[in-house]
Amino acid sequence: MTTIHNANIVEIRRDLHAYPETGWTEFRTTALVAAELDRLGYKLYLGSDAIAVDERLGVPSDDELAGALRRAQEADAPEEYLDRMNGVTGLIGEKRFGDGTGPTVGVRVDMDALDRTEAGDNTHRPAQEGFASRYPDKMHACGHDGHTAIGIGIARTLENDDEAEFNGTLKLFFQPAEEGGRGGLPMSRTPHLENIDYFFALHLGLGNETGKIIAGYDRPLSNAKLDVEFSGEPAHAGKAPEKGKNALQAAATAIQNLYAIPRHSDGATRINVGKLTSLNAQNVIAERTEMRVEVRGETAALNESMLDAAERILIHSAAMHNVNLETELYGKSTTFVSDQSAIDIVTKAASTIDNVDEIVEQETIGASEDASFLINRVQELGGKCTYVGIGASNTAGHHTAYFDIDETALQIGVDVLVQTITRCAIE
Amino acid sequence: MTTIHNANIVEIRRDLHAYPETGWTEFRTTALVAAELDRLGYKLYLGSDAIAVDERLGVPSDDELAGALRRAQEADAPEEYLDRMNGVTGLIGEKRFGDGTGPTVGVRVDMDALDRTEAGDNTHRPAQEGFASRYPDKMHACGHDGHTAIGIGIARTLENDDEAEFNGTLKLFFQPAEEGGRGGLPMSRTPHLENIDYFFALHLGLGNETGKIIAGYDRPLSNAKLDVEFSGEPAHAGKAPEKGKNALQAAATAIQNLYAIPRHSDGATRINVGKLTSLNAQNVIAERTEMRVEVRGETAALNESMLDAAERILIHSAAMHNVNLETELYGKSTTFVSDQSAIDIVTKAASTIDNVDEIVEQETIGASEDASFLINRVQELGGKCTYVGIGASNTAGHHTAYFDIDETALQIGVDVLVQTITRCAIE
Amino acid sequence: MTTIHNANIVEIRRDLHAYPETGWTEFRTTALVAAELDRLGYKLYLGSDAIAVDERLGVPSDDELAGALRRAQEADAPEEYLDRMNGVTGLIGEKRFGDGTGPTVGVRVDMDALDRTEAGDNTHRPAQEGFASRYPDKMHACGHDGHTAIGIGIARTLENDDEAEFNGTLKLFFQPAEEGGRGGLPMSRTPHLENIDYFFALHLGLGNETGKIIAGYDRPLSNAKLDVEFSGEPAHAGKAPEKGKNALQAAATAIQNLYAIPRHSDGATRINVGKLTSLNAQNVIAERTEMRVEVRGETAALNESMLDAAERILIHSAAMHNVNLETELYGKSTTFVSDQSAIDIVTKAASTIDNVDEIVEQETIGASEDASFLINRVQELGGKCTYVGIGASNTAGHHTAYFDIDETALQIGVDVLVQTITRCAIE
Amino acid sequence: MTTIHNANIVEIRRDLHAYPETGWTEFRTTALVAAELDRLGYKLYLGSDAIAVDERLGVPSDDELAGALRRAQEADAPEEYLDRMNGVTGLIGEKRFGDGTGPTVGVRVDMDALDRTEAGDNTHRPAQEGFASRYPDKMHACGHDGHTAIGIGIARTLENDDEAEFNGTLKLFFQPAEEGGRGGLPMSRTPHLENIDYFFALHLGLGNETGKIIAGYDRPLSNAKLDVEFSGEPAHAGKAPEKGKNALQAAATAIQNLYAIPRHSDGATRINVGKLTSLNAQNVIAERTEMRVEVRGETAALNESMLDAAERILIHSAAMHNVNLETELYGKSTTFVSDQSAIDIVTKAASTIDNVDEIVEQETIGASEDASFLINRVQELGGKCTYVGIGASNTAGHHTAYFDIDETALQIGVDVLVQTITRCAIE
Repeated sequence: MTTIHNANIVEIRRDLHAYPETGWTEFRTTALVAAELDRLGYKLYLGSDAIAVDERLGVPSDDELAGALRRAQEADAPEEYLDRMNGVTGLIGEKRFGDGTGPTVGVRVDMDALDRTEAGDNTHRPAQEGFASRYPDKMHACGHDGHTAIGIGIARTLENDDEAEFNGTLKLFFQPAEEGGRGGLPMSRTPHLENIDYFFALHLGLGNETGKIIAGYDRPLSNAKLDVEFSGEPAHAGKAPEKGKNALQAAATAIQNLYAIPRHSDGATRINVGKLTSLNAQNVIAERTEMRVEVRGETAALNESMLDAAERILIHSAAMHNVNLETELYGKSTTFVSDQSAIDIVTKAASTIDNVDEIVEQETIGASEDASFLINRVQELGGKCTYVGIGASNTAGHHTAYFDIDETALQIGVDVLVQTITRCAIE
Repeated sequence: MTTIHNANIVEIRRDLHAYPETGWTEFRTTALVAAELDRLGYKLYLGSDAIAVDERLGVPSDDELAGALRRAQEADAPEEYLDRMNGVTGLIGEKRFGDGTGPTVGVRVDMDALDRTEAGDNTHRPAQEGFASRYPDKMHACGHDGHTAIGIGIARTLENDDEAEFNGTLKLFFQPAEEGGRGGLPMSRTPHLENIDYFFALHLGLGNETGKIIAGYDRPLSNAKLDVEFSGEPAHAGKAPEKGKNALQAAATAIQNLYAIPRHSDGATRINVGKLTSLNAQNVIAERTEMRVEVRGETAALNESMLDAAERILIHSAAMHNVNLETELYGKSTTFVSDQSAIDIVTKAASTIDNVDEIVEQETIGASEDASFLINRVQELGGKCTYVGIGASNTAGHHTAYFDIDETALQIGVDVLVQTITRCAIE
Repeated sequence: MTTIHNANIVEIRRDLHAYPETGWTEFRTTALVAAELDRLGYKLYLGSDAIAVDERLGVPSDDELAGALRRAQEADAPEEYLDRMNGVTGLIGEKRFGDGTGPTVGVRVDMDALDRTEAGDNTHRPAQEGFASRYPDKMHACGHDGHTAIGIGIARTLENDDEAEFNGTLKLFFQPAEEGGRGGLPMSRTPHLENIDYFFALHLGLGNETGKIIAGYDRPLSNAKLDVEFSGEPAHAGKAPEKGKNALQAAATAIQNLYAIPRHSDGATRINVGKLTSLNAQNVIAERTEMRVEVRGETAALNESMLDAAERILIHSAAMHNVNLETELYGKSTTFVSDQSAIDIVTKAASTIDNVDEIVEQETIGASEDASFLINRVQELGGKCTYVGIGASNTAGHHTAYFDIDETALQIGVDVLVQTITRCAIE
Repeated sequence: MTTIHNANIVEIRRDLHAYPETGWTEFRTTALVAAELDRLGYKLYLGSDAIAVDERLGVPSDDELAGALRRAQEADAPEEYLDRMNGVTGLIGEKRFGDGTGPTVGVRVDMDALDRTEAGDNTHRPAQEGFASRYPDKMHACGHDGHTAIGIGIARTLENDDEAEFNGTLKLFFQPAEEGGRGGLPMSRTPHLENIDYFFALHLGLGNETGKIIAGYDRPLSNAKLDVEFSGEPAHAGKAPEKGKNALQAAATAIQNLYAIPRHSDGATRINVGKLTSLNAQNVIAERTEMRVEVRGETAALNESMLDAAERILIHSAAMHNVNLETELYGKSTTFVSDQSAIDIVTKAASTIDNVDEIVEQETIGASEDASFLINRVQELGGKCTYVGIGASNTAGHHTAYFDIDETALQIGVDVLVQTITRCAIE
């Protein structure tokens, strides 16, 4: 794309799709959004002005960040905004409309991609039409490219639509690092969540066909992700097995007991060990084993109780095998309940949009979602919130190599949100 | 090195050290040795003439083999011999000396390097003197570069030494893929082990200082290595954990029970899981987990009983978690006892060498060794064998990044073996 | 008690409390109830006429049954009915009232006690007032003595109350072996559940104070209990550990993996290993290990999926350690939903009873309950059912040594049920 | 038996066989031996004079001890000696022979029986001939009844044999509680082991036929036995599984990891969990689990390293599941090497005995043996020791219900030991 300003939201989505950036490396994405919001007259809060830097979770290594920044520069990200980010991705744009006497409305979209290789064959539209990922092991496989495009679409529409009667203040939150629940918490710990009257987050797809709107998509499981490292001592497994301190035995003990954390009568809980690597040769006692663990709970308290139990098991699995343990919180999300008044606004807004053919008031999200931290913060301060499901027919499941979205849903998303924002002033 | 013919054995060792090749990829090494033995008038058995190809264990993928061959070509390996190898490394050179009425003597050396990165700082002599590994993740860290050089040294000395009274047949076995015990078995299943009267294998270092010779280094633990893959089904760990078939839980169950195989009253046994990888994201039930398992036993029977128990545990760990299991033998070695008559010859031979200052008759090798299959085969057919330890002071432990050997041991090795071969004709 | 006919329901309850009989040994209890129903003109179905004998679960050994029968005889159980039982406990009494044109109503009470020693100190009313258990390790600690007394009270009241307008058929089910879920299934597999219009089961206490009635107590977790035996081979743990086949290692592997059965997104599941015995000396490899396992599920399907997973884990834990496995279903219950029409009858009936001060329409039972099989069978054939909670203030938790019930609840139970039965004819 | 003084050693052995007493309850046995040694003029050290009372291991409860004492009284144990024992079993008899200028010689026999029921059918000689165990669950199934009889036989023979030239001091150690390794340690911590020149212990059977003598039976595995109790919290497994603290899960985790303690390159090790009991109902989370654990090592150091590892695993298995842990040392033994000079004396002595037809100089004992503590103590102070195997053909394995010994071995045992003692003075 020559410049973002000349592109429509489908083109923008396709451009972002071609240059996917994973959590905390959304340099190009942030810079492009910043350029467009700047043009539209928004006040910009970039990088450390949008994120409580010290509370970021699951930040990649300095090397990875530097590499990603270089890649963004090579892919024509506007230098001005890259400079202003100062190494930290994420952006909040704020603008007063009309006489400014109306409510303050927040909208949050997320921008990050996944570590996964996109399908390259012609049965996959992005490949066939030439906008598949340029990066071998990164992919927008969850629709956040579309969310970002919708965010820009909202800004443009409110600007250009003469009929729009919105006379309050709009804050657009372009959140980094949603995957793994890493960016929601640090974004919620900024002053930007204060004085918000209405707050909306959104998600495309999730099994909902184009034309369906879920006005109050809520009650996700709370979630926490731990990075775990067991460090023992290597030894020759034939000559002196007793000299080893076996990190892999510690991990196996942990796995057996983690899945066996008792079920809870207060509600659903979850536990998983998704990743494990332990790389010694066959004849060497395992000296270093890394795991990625995840817990969930129907409530924040259940999630905390799972996290406590997991940590206790990890500590004693390590001590039992005389190995050291390091754990680091990789990501976290909590749960929330949408506010009826916010749900009502979305429901009414959606009913005015032509291409919407089904509106569901409330439904439970199966997945976890770190917009929960922003929503909790706004609600704590008295604002009303909901999370909106925007139906978007998918060719394949989220997080898979053939994931793609029906792009007609982008405009529906823009329309529903613009109507919603406008109606906040009316209610 | 311009050509191998102009290089002395220290130069040859340093050249091989700079171009380390791991098991079944010793293309350049085999070709260089072939060129030199060819010049010295040996009959050459290359590749599938030296190895029972179908019985090879732990062969890398076709891609890896092709890459290694290309690398050998780029590093000036003589094309003629690369062609004759036809993708299979390993070499046997055979020559008749004098009237040929003397005994047939076999000498086996190994040629392969390890998957490990060599130290690059100036405290490490190979780095300082410019012969450290050219390849980032390969290294001669067990002295096989020296073994190969000694093999060539033996051939040259017997050729050039006018006083040498050897009048029998010499077979030099340049074995590939000793690490992991992958090349010994298929080399033992060739007709070249037939009609051998005396057979010697050798190893540098192993904790013995330069000047020390162990005439009968024997009784290694028998060993088997298994590559294991558990294949289950992924599922979202939050939304539908019950839909997963958890390969990592199967592996953890296996690990807990593998280490718990009962000890045996007949002698020492060993078990280890050196490597495990399971690479799903945190929120996905593990769908594919790979492990590398190793068992050992003081006798071949104990080793087999460990292997049986390990396989039973693997099968039922998989079935318990509804996942598929594939296992493949990666490598194998057995045990052996040196023959007294062969030990006696080495003892006498070593006592004639100036730089030898300590001779040990018999000692147990802690490690495993797949020369055992060649030795067992020769003994089965009536030949006498021993395994010779050639002291070589080391700067650091075998298989570590700073491993280097005292090169004065190379000539000692050549001298002891040449004397030994010559004496076989006398005894 | 001289004879049951002279005793009031509080006295009957106290007599049963003093002579507690556990599952399938309710000889005295059944015989006493039979004597009273016989006097009141009920047609009696005893033992194998009330129970599908071959489908009984968790039946004690012949020795235990014989001992219990002897004990019943010594405690003055009427011989006539003991004879007619022919070794099988349980009783159904059936009687037609009025012109018999009204509906057929079933009421189920359970009769069995628990394996537990009753408190003997004077803070415990049954001890102080002399009706504590005569048997050292048996106790009515769940109120089934009261249930049986209520059953008799219902029969008497309907008989004696001139105002009672019930003109249908009453079937009273005195079920044995509710604890562990052993008697419900075989009682449901008899023809007595056919042609029932309304069916009621009941329970005292369960945390509800005297005066509270729960008209639709339902949705218990489905449940299955397995008796498990691992049989291996003993061996001297010092001299020949490899000769053992370790039943306890099999059990430990099973336990670790049973608790780790994945949680299910369809609803709550449970798993427990309550009992384990393995009795070798320290220096002998465990040859025989017995376990008692229990699974539950929010639905019958979830319960079955837990049972399947548990069986798979048990099979492969045994096979992994080369030991034999025997499993036997000890008990089972399922879930049910009360019918609104039956709930309505109970609600109205309860509202007419003076001592009832709180009526709850519907509540979930936390525990499992094998009346579920009778209820499912009646519903399958078109009858309407509910399970009624009869508040009864308790001094201590169910299944504990100090458990006792407020006996004023007995008459409330009788009154609510008699009113309910009568109203079935009216609705 | 009317009195022990009138009985021959076969009759004594049969009497002891009929009244078996397990570790620390050998009241009758000790009293009978005391009566006989008293008659023969020995100085007696009884109970706390023979045993370091505070260092006793695995002592039964006060109730059990009181019951055993009562049983001894009922079985005509002489009250005088029961009184002098003051609740502690075990006895040392000391006597000076001739001019007393010869060496001091110690002989140790053990007296305890096993917790096991003896076979009662007529294929079992003790049953057929009427001397099978009078106590339902106790049995002399390891020949200690014979050892005690041999001890008495030695005392009598030295007394009566006019030709005996022994002119030193004899100390006869009648040790309690050998099974489990509970009595050796506290007997070794008394002053009686001081100033002993030669020390002999003995064992009948152990797979050796009558007529075979092993002069230097040594190098048993060191051994330690732990009693373990995990205490958690019960909870209803259906209603509130999360409220439990699961003692059985802790035990299962411990078992899996105990058997998986790494093998040791210094020599053989052993681990076993012989007994486990956990007695909750199926629907209650396990609140209390007891285990009996045993470790062994080829050396005392290996045994200690196993014990350390076992304790670490137990501690962290408990902590991982939030349950309490109590461990208590139940028994312990160590290893020893017989002295050549003592072996030589036994070899010469045995060669003079007519019924001895095979003498083995040295052999390894497979089992553990707590005479090791007495032997270690004597050797530490400069004495020479050996452990003598007395062949005695067995009908069935040690510790089984059909175990019996060929009683002709008793006199052989007496003869070999008397000759040995006499020769100590000559050497």
